[in-house]
Amino acid sequence: MSEMPRQRGLLFCLSGPSGVGKGTVIDEVRRRRPQVAHSISITTRPPRPGEIEGVHYYFRTPEQFHQLLVEGEILEHDNYCGNYYGTPRSPLEAMRDEGRDVLMDITVPGSLAVMENYSDVVMMFLMPPTLTELRNRLNKRGTENDSVVEQRLLKGRIEINKANLFKYLVINDELTATVDRILAIMDAEHCRYERLKGLEAFVLSH
Amino acid sequence: MSEMPRQRGLLFCLSGPSGVGKGTVIDEVRRRRPQVAHSISITTRPPRPGEIEGVHYYFRTPEQFHQLLVEGEILEHDNYCGNYYGTPRSPLEAMRDEGRDVLMDITVPGSLAVMENYSDVVMMFLMPPTLTELRNRLNKRGTENDSVVEQRLLKGRIEINKANLFKYLVINDELTATVDRILAIMDAEHCRYERLKGLEAFVLSH
Repeated sequence: MSEMPRQRGLLFCLSGPSGVGKGTVIDEVRRRRPQVAHSISITTRPPRPGEIEGVHYYFRTPEQFHQLLVEGEILEHDNYCGNYYGTPRSPLEAMRDEGRDVLMDITVPGSLAVMENYSDVVMMFLMPPTLTELRNRLNKRGTENDSVVEQRLLKGRIEINKANLFKYLVINDELTATVDRILAIMDAEHCRYERLKGLEAFVLSH
Repeated sequence: MSEMPRQRGLLFCLSGPSGVGKGTVIDEVRRRRPQVAHSISITTRPPRPGEIEGVHYYFRTPEQFHQLLVEGEILEHDNYCGNYYGTPRSPLEAMRDEGRDVLMDITVPGSLAVMENYSDVVMMFLMPPTLTELRNRLNKRGTENDSVVEQRLLKGRIEINKANLFKYLVINDELTATVDRILAIMDAEHCRYERLKGLEAFVLSH
């Protein structure tokens, strides 16, 4: 009997306000499910010692970056300290073609750009249990003074008001439960009818 | 700090062709997650010895059944050996109000009726890996002769062609994996933005 047609990998995006804990959550998703791929950014920043092309970043000149932007190859981008950082489309497609899911960690403004440029992405918003808890987490980092924390919190409030643009809200209350929810969303999305087109034809002919 | 607003339970429906294994799968879902409620049918059949009202069935006269049907209280119904069987709306709502998810086991034609009568239901179609495997499972039951099996298989083919009306397709290849998928779908649906309206307001005000 021939094999069931292999499903293409899906593209997931996890976003949320600064301090909510995206990095920790994504690290734990990858630890529990190592086959999940992450996207590698393109940057115009010069490589630092030890940084490898295609592993840490794709390093490009500003001219190359601009050209890729014009070609629609960059799903979202930002400028930080004079350097551009962007999310390239082709490597995602290649990983999805291999059947691997891709999980991206993207800022809220970046997520809105991705939604515009790439319709087939599953958007998840990582939500703090309360604003008080978000303030506590920002304070615990301890690297910022009070005014920076208040500034981030203000930005966070604005971003939480954009949560309605996301398909899923994931409350980040406790790491294991949070990661359980994200893995459930990833598994459930694979069962959606639209993701399994052609399955009936396969079943009926085998 | 006040509690996060408790979410209403969700209504899930698992359907699929005769022989695919709905009963076994639902039993295993309930074993692994006992808090999931099931719907109790209304019937016009007289109670058998030991059957308890509200546990095995809600027993009603044909006149009462007809009245409930007219009132829109019955989401789907069928006639079997001269008796009516139907799925009542109010007990589902009551369980959902208590915060319990409800998982219904309903035939494919019944599911289509539920979809028409109740918009807020998550429809899952349990799919055999192949038609050959569905035939094997029907044969293994051993209670039916070949012509009954072929009749069921024909009906199954027609039902598989209705899978496009369902939101999720769950391949029933291996019991544990199948139940994993169903639990993932149930968990993921709870994270959908529409299910969590009011969460942003809660987070921002606490």
